[in-house]
Amino acid sequence: MAKMKAVFIRKETGSLIVRETEIPKPGAGEVLVKIAAAPINPSDTAGIKDALNGVHDLDTFIPGNEGSGTVVSAGKGLLPTVWKGKRVACASKGEGNGTWAEYVVTKAGNCYPLDKNVSDEQGSMTLVNPLTALAFIEMAREGNHKAIINNAAASALGRMVELLCKKEGIPLVNIVRRDEQVKALKDTGSEYVLNSSGTSFVKDLQSLSDKLGATILFDSVSGPGFPEITEALPYGSRVVIYGSLSPDQYVSVDPRKLLAKDITISGFYLGNQAKKNGLIKNLMNLRKVSKLMRTEMKINIRAGYPLDKAQEAVDEYLKNMTAGKIILQP
Amino acid sequence: MAKMKAVFIRKETGSLIVRETEIPKPGAGEVLVKIAAAPINPSDTAGIKDALNGVHDLDTFIPGNEGSGTVVSAGKGLLPTVWKGKRVACASKGEGNGTWAEYVVTKAGNCYPLDKNVSDEQGSMTLVNPLTALAFIEMAREGNHKAIINNAAASALGRMVELLCKKEGIPLVNIVRRDEQVKALKDTGSEYVLNSSGTSFVKDLQSLSDKLGATILFDSVSGPGFPEITEALPYGSRVVIYGSLSPDQYVSVDPRKLLAKDITISGFYLGNQAKKNGLIKNLMNLRKVSKLMRTEMKINIRAGYPLDKAQEAVDEYLKNMTAGKIILQP
Repeated sequence: MAKMKAVFIRKETGSLIVRETEIPKPGAGEVLVKIAAAPINPSDTAGIKDALNGVHDLDTFIPGNEGSGTVVSAGKGLLPTVWKGKRVACASKGEGNGTWAEYVVTKAGNCYPLDKNVSDEQGSMTLVNPLTALAFIEMAREGNHKAIINNAAASALGRMVELLCKKEGIPLVNIVRRDEQVKALKDTGSEYVLNSSGTSFVKDLQSLSDKLGATILFDSVSGPGFPEITEALPYGSRVVIYGSLSPDQYVSVDPRKLLAKDITISGFYLGNQAKKNGLIKNLMNLRKVSKLMRTEMKINIRAGYPLDKAQEAVDEYLKNMTAGKIILQP
Repeated sequence: MAKMKAVFIRKETGSLIVRETEIPKPGAGEVLVKIAAAPINPSDTAGIKDALNGVHDLDTFIPGNEGSGTVVSAGKGLLPTVWKGKRVACASKGEGNGTWAEYVVTKAGNCYPLDKNVSDEQGSMTLVNPLTALAFIEMAREGNHKAIINNAAASALGRMVELLCKKEGIPLVNIVRRDEQVKALKDTGSEYVLNSSGTSFVKDLQSLSDKLGATILFDSVSGPGFPEITEALPYGSRVVIYGSLSPDQYVSVDPRKLLAKDITISGFYLGNQAKKNGLIKNLMNLRKVSKLMRTEMKINIRAGYPLDKAQEAVDEYLKNMTAGKIILQP
């Protein structure tokens, strides 16, 4: 059996290590991708947290939700055959079959071919964030929300949401936590930026969201500020939680405010969304993303790390999540 | 100026008192109802809590969300003229113009004539609970939920939800807190009753909701058990909070579970729902309720109190909210 290196979580310490494991084989409709680059996303660190909390089996769990590479082997089916030999961006199929490894098996439907002027590194980040940003815009459109509020807006995803909002003419309220981030966003053309550490934050959010009709909030923080932010929204607003960067297990909700202001809270997870969308819509979205990546989306990259420095890479990433992406290069 | 007795909240103590105030005058589209009976509902005690928390002005706030009585004076408009002289059930128009008084001004559209074989006392309870129960059934139908879960199911509202579910052939999972309540519900024909104090409660809720496809939960407790109950629901479930009987200000939500299980949490407040419905739908619902009240819905009444014993009445009600309704009789 051929072996590969992959990142695992060490049971005793909870830290990331590299060890050898068998190269998986693609089943029907699947492909084997030799990974060139794989980013560290909030969804990855969340997956690791879950694994440590017993949601996944640590013996087999490999982190990593997306990456880029070459399809070196194909299972049965038309799409796998078409992708064979191509350089692709791919999302993992979940269940611990992650991209932080030399090879990954995933569904052919989770891959799309990369244009030759997109680098391995940029290409490795073209699924999770861009598809999430696209989904946000769609949710805003479908719910007739006139403007969007995004929390943790200085992130790579936040910048992508801004880019798409500009393209679509949807006003965006960016919430960040530090004055430097306010400045950085203003400098790159953001019109509305609020600092959640400021004393007038809740009042400002209230009046701005009222004025713009910003009735949909995307929150990846799930932190202690959640009730205040939620209660500042206009009547009938929707709150979409898509992450939990805060170390707290729970967020608090004031049921009386929920009732009085007719607020709805739901969760967004790209994997669930993809299931709801179905193959056709997913492929259409991939094509949109692929076009955007060729032309407008460039993600700021801070550093590359080899697989066996995965723990170091994650530590560096968590130190400052908005200072550019960190990429694993198997 | 003619005067009336009405219930107010004493600023210094937070307790209910009766004092004299001017009899209000109906504006266009409004009627003046001489109140015969007005029940104490959870929405009333919640309103009082809100008033004490500064949401309403204690100088003018009169509690009471519904009642029955006779239309003694009508403002401009067709509907007010039609209702004049009639015995009606009415919902208050909100903003502290409550029914716990000798007279109330409300919108003519918030009233409907009572059938002569419905008593003042039964008639006084025909709006908040029956319309809420109807709305629950509609939400379940619209969201294609195969079965319903109701928390605090031993309440008058809970019994009404059961009655409507039986009529419509929708399985209902009743959650109660005590063994006597399990017995009482089983004795009156409830098929599914779970005791949230039982050790196997979460597991039982999980398997029962899975089996029945019970993907909508109505929760009026908003208590410490909220995360467990929410997380036991099937994938894609909806949680509708319609009250906060628990003394806690906040409920906790695990954002990771929300994401993974695609759970949506929203609030239900009858006043907001009525605005969404519009006049026609509200009148249709009132007719449905009126028919049900003539035939099938009988609410258990524990005691009647005069207005000036309102505080005593509320205390008695809060001691045991599922032992029958308490009615104020001005």
